[in-house]
Amino acid sequence: MAQIVTAAMLIIGDEILSGRTKDKNIGHLADVMTMIGVDLKEVRIVPDEEDEIVAAINALRVRYDYLFTTGGIGPTHDDITADSVAKAFGLPCDYDDRAYAMLEANYAARGMEFSEARKRMARMPRGAAHIDNPISTAPGFRVENVHVMAGVPSIFQAMLDNVVPTLRTGTKMLSATVHCPFGEGTIGGPLAAIQKEHPDTVIGSYPKYADGTYWTELVVRARSQEALEPARIAVESMVAELAKAA
Amino acid sequence: MAQIVTAAMLIIGDEILSGRTKDKNIGHLADVMTMIGVDLKEVRIVPDEEDEIVAAINALRVRYDYLFTTGGIGPTHDDITADSVAKAFGLPCDYDDRAYAMLEANYAARGMEFSEARKRMARMPRGAAHIDNPISTAPGFRVENVHVMAGVPSIFQAMLDNVVPTLRTGTKMLSATVHCPFGEGTIGGPLAAIQKEHPDTVIGSYPKYADGTYWTELVVRARSQEALEPARIAVESMVAELAKAA
Repeated sequence: MAQIVTAAMLIIGDEILSGRTKDKNIGHLADVMTMIGVDLKEVRIVPDEEDEIVAAINALRVRYDYLFTTGGIGPTHDDITADSVAKAFGLPCDYDDRAYAMLEANYAARGMEFSEARKRMARMPRGAAHIDNPISTAPGFRVENVHVMAGVPSIFQAMLDNVVPTLRTGTKMLSATVHCPFGEGTIGGPLAAIQKEHPDTVIGSYPKYADGTYWTELVVRARSQEALEPARIAVESMVAELAKAA
Repeated sequence: MAQIVTAAMLIIGDEILSGRTKDKNIGHLADVMTMIGVDLKEVRIVPDEEDEIVAAINALRVRYDYLFTTGGIGPTHDDITADSVAKAFGLPCDYDDRAYAMLEANYAARGMEFSEARKRMARMPRGAAHIDNPISTAPGFRVENVHVMAGVPSIFQAMLDNVVPTLRTGTKMLSATVHCPFGEGTIGGPLAAIQKEHPDTVIGSYPKYADGTYWTELVVRARSQEALEPARIAVESMVAELAKAA
């Protein structure tokens, strides 16, 4: 029996919504989740506003097995993710002793002031577990199924590398891609029939267009080779038939 | 008095959530909205599942002045956006006479069969207005404040170009960027004080990190030059002071 594990992502930051920063984290998380057998089911992007963040966290954390957030855990006034997560869980947001000590030692070693702003990065909901940050020390954190990570892509990726081994994973979605030289209008009918005959698969059709030419990538996905293979063969046969007729 | 106009975006497609396709439309919509003075306040990505699409449309369309959707309006079985929008509004989803005639003429001119799959692209909620598609004919559509567009970036962009002149726009957010050679930990305290003194602005701090060096882009945003300028000067002075002290 296939095991299904689901996840959602919450991106926190005005800069993504204003277009100033182009997100690079959605595609990375999606790739990693697919690779390990976790179904990313929803992504939301919200501004740096506490009510919005709290509402999104509470909507998503109860609905999916995991929630991953990015952004808003730095030292400046617009970094309000730790407070928002604490509020979502009804927890106090305090300096975490271990994070405080790590950051204090880090800045001392670099001969830098451990400023009030830098101390903010030691704040997290009481009792949160750390997510190690091998790049810039300040840890992310986890409360229950909510993993709170940095928005800077290199740090997000490093934190995610530390989270992945801790996750319960499901039966991986297997996939097979069939290149199709025809547009969707040509294949739509027969492809729908194949989908109907193979209900344990999800058959996707991704239209491509460049220089006046249409073609399609047909992707068959399933959680077992036994389900995947007959559907893949059916799709390949359909494309071959159409090529013969063309 | 500043006029505020808000928008949300809904991206429909398994391929974005699986990582197979990397989204290019969020950044484009965000840039365009910022340029014309519409505040993009939320983005969601949902899978090709009717219940999810309907729920997201109904959550977003009542909350924001505009909702823009991308994806799921092609000819294949996994393109269920038209049906989902119709369901969200309680409207029947029919062949639209004008869209049907346009597509029929287009395929006739190209000597191609007007297949059942291609006919699907003429379906929309009854009474919907068209959004012209100069690239591949099949129109997007609008029902009330919901604009339904293609997911293929070139087609999405062309459709959006046709939508923009029809939108009510607000007072544009002006912005000024101050390059800051210091990390967020150094500027966090004084920057928070400046934000407090300039409540009509939104001051964002965007950490940059590469090759072991941190720096920051500080962005001051406001809806009038009168609000923006004093805050920009205060941020610049702060950076200059810190540079002197360093």
